[in-house]
Amino acid sequence: MKGPYYLEDFAVGQIFKTGRLRIDKEQIFAFAKQFDPQPYHLDEAAALKSPFQGLAASGWHTAALTMRLLVEGEFKPAGGILGIGFDALSWPRAVRPGDELHAQSEVLDVRPSKSRPDRGMIRVRTTTYNQNNETVQIFTGNLLVPRRSANT
Amino acid sequence: MKGPYYLEDFAVGQIFKTGRLRIDKEQIFAFAKQFDPQPYHLDEAAALKSPFQGLAASGWHTAALTMRLLVEGEFKPAGGILGIGFDALSWPRAVRPGDELHAQSEVLDVRPSKSRPDRGMIRVRTTTYNQNNETVQIFTGNLLVPRRSANT
Repeated sequence: MKGPYYLEDFAVGQIFKTGRLRIDKEQIFAFAKQFDPQPYHLDEAAALKSPFQGLAASGWHTAALTMRLLVEGEFKPAGGILGIGFDALSWPRAVRPGDELHAQSEVLDVRPSKSRPDRGMIRVRTTTYNQNNETVQIFTGNLLVPRRSANT
Repeated sequence: MKGPYYLEDFAVGQIFKTGRLRIDKEQIFAFAKQFDPQPYHLDEAAALKSPFQGLAASGWHTAALTMRLLVEGEFKPAGGILGIGFDALSWPRAVRPGDELHAQSEVLDVRPSKSRPDRGMIRVRTTTYNQNNETVQIFTGNLLVPRRSANT
């Protein structure tokens, strides 16, 4: 399968992979300056003394980079990756300068909408890994997906 | 209170406010190009035909801007705003070009760590509003906070 995928194409247990993106110190600083200006994301000396024990990317930077990986990866719902919300988002390990991230998404649930026959929701868990395959982020969310039968 | 706040300073029901940040079309495009390159965040004509029915900011952009509002707002835990993870994140309404966002955080729970006497966790719900006080994002998360008794 190459996508785009309609609701009818999704099934529990499917796995979708992404490419890889490297994150460097300058990117960590640039994101932090704009969105999360705290010392452990902006200042290497201050970061050493923080709970991160060294410079770390903002968790929101990891989330944003994961979105980029998803958009360019195998997971291609028709109509785009349209997240309604998440009910779990965690950062079990810090992302460091030089880390290379990739992600994997697993379909946990597929259900047609009761009120709208042209769409449905899928529940997906996306795990982001660093180059050592250590988990740096997990989120589980609900996405809106069109039904093929009503849209083609 | 002006902060920084230690675990002992937090109590259930406290409310912390932020300033305001305006988001314009160029910022929506710039974030989307870098992190969420999908048509409804990048192309006004395509966005009109999408479920957003017009150009909308990436949800991750709203999350990142909310973080910026928090860092510059009244909510100042000692040691920084250190999110461990979230168990609810939703975007009930799209953020549009020209919207001016502000946020409000409410403390839902305060608990000392059982294993680490120098810290604890607080549970906080942050709601982000547009200029019409319509909710554009809600997240509920757990933050690591140092205890005053062990750190001063």
